[in-house]
Amino acid sequence: MNKQLLFVKRPKGEADASTWSLETNPIPEISEGEILVKQHYVSLDPAMRGWMNEGKSYIAPMEIGSVMRAGSVGEVIASKNERFKVGEYVSGHGGVQQYAATDGKGFYQVDPKLAPLPTYIGALGMPGMTAFFGIQEVGKIKEGDVVVVSGAAGAVGSIVGQIAKIKGCHVVGIAGGAEKCTYVVDELGFDACIDYKNEDVKARLKETCPKGLDVYFDNVGGEILDIVLGRLRMRARIVICGAISQYNNKEAVKGPSNYLSLLVNRASMTGMVVFDWADRYQEGALQMGQWMAQGKLKTREDVYEGIENFPETYNRLFSGEKNGKLVLKVIEK
Amino acid sequence: MNKQLLFVKRPKGEADASTWSLETNPIPEISEGEILVKQHYVSLDPAMRGWMNEGKSYIAPMEIGSVMRAGSVGEVIASKNERFKVGEYVSGHGGVQQYAATDGKGFYQVDPKLAPLPTYIGALGMPGMTAFFGIQEVGKIKEGDVVVVSGAAGAVGSIVGQIAKIKGCHVVGIAGGAEKCTYVVDELGFDACIDYKNEDVKARLKETCPKGLDVYFDNVGGEILDIVLGRLRMRARIVICGAISQYNNKEAVKGPSNYLSLLVNRASMTGMVVFDWADRYQEGALQMGQWMAQGKLKTREDVYEGIENFPETYNRLFSGEKNGKLVLKVIEK
Repeated sequence: MNKQLLFVKRPKGEADASTWSLETNPIPEISEGEILVKQHYVSLDPAMRGWMNEGKSYIAPMEIGSVMRAGSVGEVIASKNERFKVGEYVSGHGGVQQYAATDGKGFYQVDPKLAPLPTYIGALGMPGMTAFFGIQEVGKIKEGDVVVVSGAAGAVGSIVGQIAKIKGCHVVGIAGGAEKCTYVVDELGFDACIDYKNEDVKARLKETCPKGLDVYFDNVGGEILDIVLGRLRMRARIVICGAISQYNNKEAVKGPSNYLSLLVNRASMTGMVVFDWADRYQEGALQMGQWMAQGKLKTREDVYEGIENFPETYNRLFSGEKNGKLVLKVIEK
Repeated sequence: MNKQLLFVKRPKGEADASTWSLETNPIPEISEGEILVKQHYVSLDPAMRGWMNEGKSYIAPMEIGSVMRAGSVGEVIASKNERFKVGEYVSGHGGVQQYAATDGKGFYQVDPKLAPLPTYIGALGMPGMTAFFGIQEVGKIKEGDVVVVSGAAGAVGSIVGQIAKIKGCHVVGIAGGAEKCTYVVDELGFDACIDYKNEDVKARLKETCPKGLDVYFDNVGGEILDIVLGRLRMRARIVICGAISQYNNKEAVKGPSNYLSLLVNRASMTGMVVFDWADRYQEGALQMGQWMAQGKLKTREDVYEGIENFPETYNRLFSGEKNGKLVLKVIEK
């Protein structure tokens, strides 16, 4: 049988358990052109909250009654599609379910001998590609730049900062809690990390970036974005990747009231969506894989188990009670 | 004697008459390297409000007791500087006074036979250069783009829109009042103009830009910026030139709460200051002059008289009670 998590109610504000319904259905039969994937892991990402909203966004909103959208990695156990063979491992958007029947669109082969499966939905998957192309192509980092990244201990931020270090930048992270900050500095090699839950972000930013900053990679929005805007250097670049502090708002999003700092400093704020670099994912994954093999890039997945624990695990995205890329193991045997 | 308007009090919110003091002093003697300019016209610009604030900006704040900063145009009546001859006309930042002694830094010759003097502090001066470089170099307009500009009847906006028309764009203005809108469409040739004082901007924007917009040149900020953010096309560019709706705020500036539209649409918001193109002003003025001669670019100055009327004239910047570029004639004979 196939346990599936269905999206049954659009949340207002925070999503709670009533947002989803766990159902058990027969494992689907595949049609011509399709494959059946036995899914091992699904990815949990802040972007999920946005997918639940109605209305135009960078991707169609989820329909009520559909399987909860999620990136995933698993094994092909039946194939009527010549691109895929039984026994291969694949990653794609298989959704929160144990078995996914798909025409293979957006799925690609991965090699479990080169990296553990969860890495393919982390550093070698969407979060990694987001970091790789976002900080380089949108942030346009160059040697000597002062780079600040929020969500610094998270799936995207942790990689953004490490790439910036590899490229010769001075890197300051912002994360929630002393433990995460220690990890970011001691394990990942950032130059400094500001604990926004316990420290004065403005004062610490001044201390860690005394001459201001060239690039800000923003995953959080809200007040921290405003504080950072106040310390831009000339021609600074802000990459808008996300705004996790605002996703559960019932009221309007807080706009950055310091945005006129863009004018004063001839700076820019640019939005990004990783899908735009789909034709270069291979290049990104190859480079990231090399850095990982060389020990220059460290990744950490925080793996929980059991499809029935999805709602509780999902909440960790917003409470911050997680260590690294959040992943749920959905395979049972 | 030299009538001078001194800046004597930093305003909170709107500037009023107590911000300045009119004084009469002897015409200054010039030292070696200096010139004496008999000023004919001074320029009134929304940016003046920002110069009155304390603190870091793109230009040093004005000091209490100094002559009110302003662009100006006038005649050289004495010279101890080999770059300038008596009888030449020059433009620069001479301030709100009848005679300016200066080392000539930032001053350049203008030809009163080619254009009326006020044009040199309008279309051929800072506002014109702001429009010329802002819409082309920051907005990166190309043929077929849908361009929206706020402050469309003003010194900068009116030129932005006309340049965009020359370059083959579909251009929609936003201005305050039916009269200004009629001028913008009938005289300047914009495709449409939205009267934000009497019309539903959101509905009219949908109507005039049914497929969204590619470039927004923003002079006003505030709610209009938010509405425009809601109608961006993919890879749209927002040029942040000013935010006149926010300059007199006593509270924090209103941040654009729709800024996540930048993410959804992979759009950017970039600040600009015209001084960055100082080494290309000649190129800009030449092209603008040609367009004016060819009848492709129309300009309008709204000229008031009497240095003592500066405060009242200045208020027209913010009340909108003006028709085109605001200029004050300070010469008395």
